[in-house]
Amino acid sequence: MITIFDPHQLLHAPLRELHNGGWADHAEIPGRAENVLAALGPALPARDLGMAPIAAVHDEGYLAFLQAAHRDWVAAGRGGDAIPYVWPVVGRRELDLTRIDARLGRYSYDAGTPITAHSWTSAYWSAQTALTALDEATRAPAFALCRPPGHHAGRDYLGGYCFLNSAAIAAAEARRRGLGPVAILDVDYHHGNGTQDIFAADPDMLFVSIHADPATDYPFYWGHADERGTGAGEGTTLNLPLPRGSDWAAYEPALDRAIDAVAAYATRFLVVSFGADTFVDDPISHFALRRPDFTRLGQRIATLDLPTLIVMEGGYATADLGDNVAAFLAGIAS
Amino acid sequence: MITIFDPHQLLHAPLRELHNGGWADHAEIPGRAENVLAALGPALPARDLGMAPIAAVHDEGYLAFLQAAHRDWVAAGRGGDAIPYVWPVVGRRELDLTRIDARLGRYSYDAGTPITAHSWTSAYWSAQTALTALDEATRAPAFALCRPPGHHAGRDYLGGYCFLNSAAIAAAEARRRGLGPVAILDVDYHHGNGTQDIFAADPDMLFVSIHADPATDYPFYWGHADERGTGAGEGTTLNLPLPRGSDWAAYEPALDRAIDAVAAYATRFLVVSFGADTFVDDPISHFALRRPDFTRLGQRIATLDLPTLIVMEGGYATADLGDNVAAFLAGIAS
Repeated sequence: MITIFDPHQLLHAPLRELHNGGWADHAEIPGRAENVLAALGPALPARDLGMAPIAAVHDEGYLAFLQAAHRDWVAAGRGGDAIPYVWPVVGRRELDLTRIDARLGRYSYDAGTPITAHSWTSAYWSAQTALTALDEATRAPAFALCRPPGHHAGRDYLGGYCFLNSAAIAAAEARRRGLGPVAILDVDYHHGNGTQDIFAADPDMLFVSIHADPATDYPFYWGHADERGTGAGEGTTLNLPLPRGSDWAAYEPALDRAIDAVAAYATRFLVVSFGADTFVDDPISHFALRRPDFTRLGQRIATLDLPTLIVMEGGYATADLGDNVAAFLAGIAS
Repeated sequence: MITIFDPHQLLHAPLRELHNGGWADHAEIPGRAENVLAALGPALPARDLGMAPIAAVHDEGYLAFLQAAHRDWVAAGRGGDAIPYVWPVVGRRELDLTRIDARLGRYSYDAGTPITAHSWTSAYWSAQTALTALDEATRAPAFALCRPPGHHAGRDYLGGYCFLNSAAIAAAEARRRGLGPVAILDVDYHHGNGTQDIFAADPDMLFVSIHADPATDYPFYWGHADERGTGAGEGTTLNLPLPRGSDWAAYEPALDRAIDAVAAYATRFLVVSFGADTFVDDPISHFALRRPDFTRLGQRIATLDLPTLIVMEGGYATADLGDNVAAFLAGIAS
């Protein structure tokens, strides 16, 4: 299977994240992508397909913020990575904010997604990697080795290690090219809240996610089973939360439901947000899939027999990551 | 002037706050109250006037959260102070959340207000101090040496070092006792967003605030000049933001407007949220009032000739705090 990757994606290297009341070493490290590359062999480079597909998904003010944020942080006399400390409460009105701290809070929802001097560059090329892989995916399943990941990033917010939502960007571009109906199947451990929000009111994009129950797991405020889309998009969102500890026996029935939903949508193009953090040894997640289960997961998705773009999301057992991705892709390609 | 204080208020001692991308020593230390006590002389103890006046202002779910939060934090296997790391974005729906991290984010808006094992106790007694001082204030101006401060705490959220909004609790209780119309004059350096939110839609409570322009200063998302109250409360909120660097010459005209507004409301009872962080040497604030200016400020408020309750809010130049408070109270009593 073709893999797309751009080395600019390695530049973003946040040091730490706020967790459990203190700093933890940041889990989303460049070594993740390096480990995957080592397991998969050489990747094709990403092409620069420009800002238009990104701007089709993300808010203009957000994109301007993201490109300038670390520069503004330094201009304010700060060192290190930019991290917000204050957020508007739910229901607070929109404002034309100038202060970097105010803008950091406005455009984010956690204190675990530092903006480094290189975050924009890496996120931009992560999106280009997905778009380049989209070109390939019309012929055969293609793997976009995206990093930083994207599925927690909404139209106008970052969070969960994500800045630009590469899966959403590629899905919207696939639809624009007439490849649809398009479905996004998100099998990361964490709910893809950004993707859900971007397409929640959109009747013309199916979003299906299997993930840890947000009652116990990040991102908490999204991904509950009763979230089924809004307005005209009612019914085009399907959330399948599973309890901590879920192994393949628990996972498979949810996967069956997800696959059935994709099939029932008359999908003609599939984007898979793939996270390997469902792995039993993932250090920040709590499912119990094993390597052969990733192959089974890929095989089951392959039964849909659809043009398929696989976008890399999470997975933090770095030493196992490449082999887990390879196992999944082997299933897809089988 | 009578001062009310309860030693339980000293128990809350957060270690650190997230600021400028890293930890800073927490500015809201028990020594603040100790310094004020040393300058003012012995205080009268607070009486326990119970939960009813607190529950009249704060959300039931929030109060339950606040009382249990540090216990829940420890039960989740965490050490140290409870600090949120994820917050729902603006517009996100209400949820019945159970996870401590989810609840921390739901009920807060910053990462600078740690919940310690003693936060509830200190906040409770801070509110009782204000309520006890209210009893005294019907006879002569009374000073509630509240700590932790309160004016950033909303009906259902903490933040800005604040947990229970003592000024709002006392103001609502004053109204309940038939002492109104009640006005709240907030002269802390930072906008009293919690107080504003609590009474924004309330036509029967005037809130007037002089503070640093939220375009440059915390809490950023509140306190802009065009915020004048909502719905039936339209016109009963007056925000008078001033630029950084404001000295008495810049402050006095805003104070005149504030005093005029209180007088025009036919106010019969006045609550003053007093912060000494407008002091030129305050380490986290940027106005330029000097000690004699605090006396002038008190004198100007005294011209209103109203029953007056003074509630302590911020002020972080600890070594100067007591003398600054004393200068202000001398002006009030003159």
